[in-house]
Amino acid sequence: MSAKIPLNRLLDLSQPEFLAAIGGIYEKSQWIVESFYNFTLSPSLDAAVIQDNKEKITNVRVLFNEIELLLRNSSKDRQLQLLKSHPDLCLKIEAATEITEESKHEQKSSGLSTLTAEERETFTSLNNEYKAKFPFPFILAVRNASKQTVLSALRGRVHSTLEQEMDCALFQVNKIAWMRLLDEVDAPEGKTHGGFLTCHVLDTANGIPASGMVIELYVHENMDGVQQSRLLKSFVTNSDGRLDGPALKGEEFKVGMYEWRFYLGDYFAQFSGSRISGTPFLDVVPLKFGLDDPTEHYHVPLLASPWSYSTYRGS
Amino acid sequence: MSAKIPLNRLLDLSQPEFLAAIGGIYEKSQWIVESFYNFTLSPSLDAAVIQDNKEKITNVRVLFNEIELLLRNSSKDRQLQLLKSHPDLCLKIEAATEITEESKHEQKSSGLSTLTAEERETFTSLNNEYKAKFPFPFILAVRNASKQTVLSALRGRVHSTLEQEMDCALFQVNKIAWMRLLDEVDAPEGKTHGGFLTCHVLDTANGIPASGMVIELYVHENMDGVQQSRLLKSFVTNSDGRLDGPALKGEEFKVGMYEWRFYLGDYFAQFSGSRISGTPFLDVVPLKFGLDDPTEHYHVPLLASPWSYSTYRGS
Amino acid sequence: MSAKIPLNRLLDLSQPEFLAAIGGIYEKSQWIVESFYNFTLSPSLDAAVIQDNKEKITNVRVLFNEIELLLRNSSKDRQLQLLKSHPDLCLKIEAATEITEESKHEQKSSGLSTLTAEERETFTSLNNEYKAKFPFPFILAVRNASKQTVLSALRGRVHSTLEQEMDCALFQVNKIAWMRLLDEVDAPEGKTHGGFLTCHVLDTANGIPASGMVIELYVHENMDGVQQSRLLKSFVTNSDGRLDGPALKGEEFKVGMYEWRFYLGDYFAQFSGSRISGTPFLDVVPLKFGLDDPTEHYHVPLLASPWSYSTYRGS
Amino acid sequence: MSAKIPLNRLLDLSQPEFLAAIGGIYEKSQWIVESFYNFTLSPSLDAAVIQDNKEKITNVRVLFNEIELLLRNSSKDRQLQLLKSHPDLCLKIEAATEITEESKHEQKSSGLSTLTAEERETFTSLNNEYKAKFPFPFILAVRNASKQTVLSALRGRVHSTLEQEMDCALFQVNKIAWMRLLDEVDAPEGKTHGGFLTCHVLDTANGIPASGMVIELYVHENMDGVQQSRLLKSFVTNSDGRLDGPALKGEEFKVGMYEWRFYLGDYFAQFSGSRISGTPFLDVVPLKFGLDDPTEHYHVPLLASPWSYSTYRGS
Repeated sequence: MSAKIPLNRLLDLSQPEFLAAIGGIYEKSQWIVESFYNFTLSPSLDAAVIQDNKEKITNVRVLFNEIELLLRNSSKDRQLQLLKSHPDLCLKIEAATEITEESKHEQKSSGLSTLTAEERETFTSLNNEYKAKFPFPFILAVRNASKQTVLSALRGRVHSTLEQEMDCALFQVNKIAWMRLLDEVDAPEGKTHGGFLTCHVLDTANGIPASGMVIELYVHENMDGVQQSRLLKSFVTNSDGRLDGPALKGEEFKVGMYEWRFYLGDYFAQFSGSRISGTPFLDVVPLKFGLDDPTEHYHVPLLASPWSYSTYRGS
Repeated sequence: MSAKIPLNRLLDLSQPEFLAAIGGIYEKSQWIVESFYNFTLSPSLDAAVIQDNKEKITNVRVLFNEIELLLRNSSKDRQLQLLKSHPDLCLKIEAATEITEESKHEQKSSGLSTLTAEERETFTSLNNEYKAKFPFPFILAVRNASKQTVLSALRGRVHSTLEQEMDCALFQVNKIAWMRLLDEVDAPEGKTHGGFLTCHVLDTANGIPASGMVIELYVHENMDGVQQSRLLKSFVTNSDGRLDGPALKGEEFKVGMYEWRFYLGDYFAQFSGSRISGTPFLDVVPLKFGLDDPTEHYHVPLLASPWSYSTYRGS
Repeated sequence: MSAKIPLNRLLDLSQPEFLAAIGGIYEKSQWIVESFYNFTLSPSLDAAVIQDNKEKITNVRVLFNEIELLLRNSSKDRQLQLLKSHPDLCLKIEAATEITEESKHEQKSSGLSTLTAEERETFTSLNNEYKAKFPFPFILAVRNASKQTVLSALRGRVHSTLEQEMDCALFQVNKIAWMRLLDEVDAPEGKTHGGFLTCHVLDTANGIPASGMVIELYVHENMDGVQQSRLLKSFVTNSDGRLDGPALKGEEFKVGMYEWRFYLGDYFAQFSGSRISGTPFLDVVPLKFGLDDPTEHYHVPLLASPWSYSTYRGS
Repeated sequence: MSAKIPLNRLLDLSQPEFLAAIGGIYEKSQWIVESFYNFTLSPSLDAAVIQDNKEKITNVRVLFNEIELLLRNSSKDRQLQLLKSHPDLCLKIEAATEITEESKHEQKSSGLSTLTAEERETFTSLNNEYKAKFPFPFILAVRNASKQTVLSALRGRVHSTLEQEMDCALFQVNKIAWMRLLDEVDAPEGKTHGGFLTCHVLDTANGIPASGMVIELYVHENMDGVQQSRLLKSFVTNSDGRLDGPALKGEEFKVGMYEWRFYLGDYFAQFSGSRISGTPFLDVVPLKFGLDDPTEHYHVPLLASPWSYSTYRGS
């Protein structure tokens, strides 16, 4: 993968360079990014206006929102045209020569090439039903989606109304564009996307922060189709049951699947009333979660007793 | 490991055979099991009484409770003697020639032989503090306990009062005896220990049972010191969000560490309002739990939305 | 309110009697119930067919589903006609002489007559927006809805697409029809609607069922506009943390707002390690919940430690 | 009740005044506070030392910890003497002329005077068992404890060992002393005790902070033996699902029972996909909790979907 371009440098590019960089984020629909450039950065505009526009685009999220607005305000026909431009997930990837490089990559990882005969039949049947009902192909922006996820989503969405499904498909298309944009554009030089990951452990048996608990953070990586987990960092919770600072931030905070491992058994063994023995019900508690947006705060806490726990996406 | 003896056959053994089979469940304290035999099964008793006693011992739990009662009703001196008979966890295993085979096995897996110098120092210091305070060695019945668990328990219990700690140590000793008894004695012929494992998934976002969700059950095994997980079974939840029958029961229901994997991402993708895309916050949710008692019912459910979940040991 | 008619007797009525009994469940649209009668119970049908049809309608839910199917399979025009037949929530109730008796009753309890000037303005503005966008009035089937609930729902739904909103409005219309049907029709003679309420308390601090806990069940009643709670029953949880049998079933199981009160403080005080003192964080825990469908099982449990609790609609 | 004395003024009192103010916090054991005065504030000490000591006592918690340390370091005999000085909860209050005014007040509110004959019998029997086992009376520091709480605690503690129970009784005695100290001493002039109450609502169905939700805060007051709730404040959650600042702090933050009421039904009605209708399962969610320590932060959040919720004491 080529290096990403910092946001401030991107905004200084000429139109051809700009389109070469991010013109392809919407499938075969360069007009969207082109319109954005022309309305916002074109040399035909007044220099002060251009400068003003550039200053407003403080991060990648703002840039994306501006671009996406042009799609939203476009006619239903143009939106439909965009949806129709997407490849059909069901047709064999090798046969689909009109697919862009980006979407080829995205489809492979969903594991569609390894369908059983029975699964392929279910899939084809649902996809045919979908195509008969809607004037555009089924679009799903889940990264590394399993075939089950694709089938499950297809099974659910085939029952939508046209308006609902058009709304949903545009949501997926925008999500794909956003992910492609993030693949190409970095934060402005000297800055980061701003997202970070925090943790907190509460001991609900004693009504106190769980201090002194060991926590490990792993990242899940797809190595040639095999899922592997790699230890990133180890922590010990402080007196407030928190980590001293974010677990991930700046460059380290990357989209992907992660896993906390909480050493709950060790923590609860310390209580003198503890009757820990045999095989504890809860020992090392794994908590697997996805980071999807590099501009957001993810607070992923644990509330635990020796016999129960819960977690949630906090903020 | 030699084959286990069914409970009914055990009760028919002569005193020497009986003691050979289970006399060693309390460390170097055969008198406890011996007393039990003499009070309950000795040929010197009336035949009708023996028969009656045998019939009352319907399962291994009843047998253990009867034996343990004799320890509880014994004098404080004899109890203290029993505690003192236990090996010192801190002394090198190889140097401890007076340790019985059973406790040698149990100590090895706690990974004490791989302490760093610093950890050994902390450990020795705490253990010395413990020995100065209490007239018996530190006893912990956690199977495969990590050194952290041992240290954590030691750190907590060193602050107990003598009465509290004697109570705790006897609890651990009884737990060890119970585990050793289960290693030797099977359920009566034609029966099982009676424990079983069940599951239930509730969709808290929609207030309904999560039906049609794929769940896998793994067992965690210690292969030459390396933890490995092995797939045991796959399930699909029924219309009530449950499995059709216990996930484990009878012979299959063995003490150990297990793991559910819930295919939450696939499940929630089916809802037509679902905005699933990118990297979902929750996808495959792992839930690692220990089964400790082969005579009990373990209900290990999941309550989940796309953004939160909780679990607990139910019944 | 007149007495309800048992389901079996309803099915024996003549067409005029049948329509007099339940013809009005869909606002000003007697044709739906009329169609049902003609297709299923009309004397012009073969006697064996009628008998067969009656036997299939084993409970009120089946009856409703059969009637509702006729609406679902009707043309979009007729569905739109039905939606348009509903009164406008915004117009003053006294001025709305064309409103049926049923909907008059339902509107009053939503407290719309007590809007402040500012609220009325917000309401009118949103309602005008709604009417300009959709060709039918805003319909909401919430019993005793507060003005905030109505405004909140209006605020959300005004942004829907036409298809989404038509779907939603039909859902509300069906819900109103279902509630009206339940007001008129009882279970078959000698039977009940089948719904029941159960409870379960888990002690998540100790990983055991919370046995011996006192639980009270209250019903919330609207007395001349004032909410009052009335004690229905007291329970003590059994050894499995459950009640011995359903808390409500049969005739007692009525739609409405209820409240469990769990005597958590008393329960946790019994543990010898308990440091209960001062003002406990949790003492008597109230849990207020609505029963909405007299044909369903409501399982409303509590999972609690002295410092945390959770609940959910189970099954 | 007479006005409280600010901490800084208390420390300037003469010994007789000081003892008159807080000498009675430990039942009939003025020597504890007297020792504190003599060691810390006595005019016989060097003026610079006194000044230094005063400066170290920055808040009531520090003051209490210093006093309590003297009790902890005293001989077991003196501790036992203190425990024995407490009145017997079982003897009729009117007959107990040797009870100090403070403990008389505390006993009345536990409702012991309204025991049924059967309850009195259980109570007396347990209390006799307790007195036969322990050389001091049963002590419980729960404010407004119901008779069930007292019985439950008595039932649990009667099984403790002497060491455990002496530890527990001293904990209760210290808690009583702490509560009495807070009744007499205010924060230093111009300051507060420092405790505050915060809230947070997470929408676990959508994985976002629940913004725009109405929350009310009530206080529960005991009016002539009748529990009444009084509305203190209303809030609307901000974009982060929090309140703008603490709900209670400074003078307002008083020990007692409180209740949040969360307008959950209104909140979830706004979602266009919401199928709200009939009687919602959750509408106004009550959450009753105790504030026990005026120097601490109480974070009492709600995690909720339309079908489930949980809460906990956070920090």
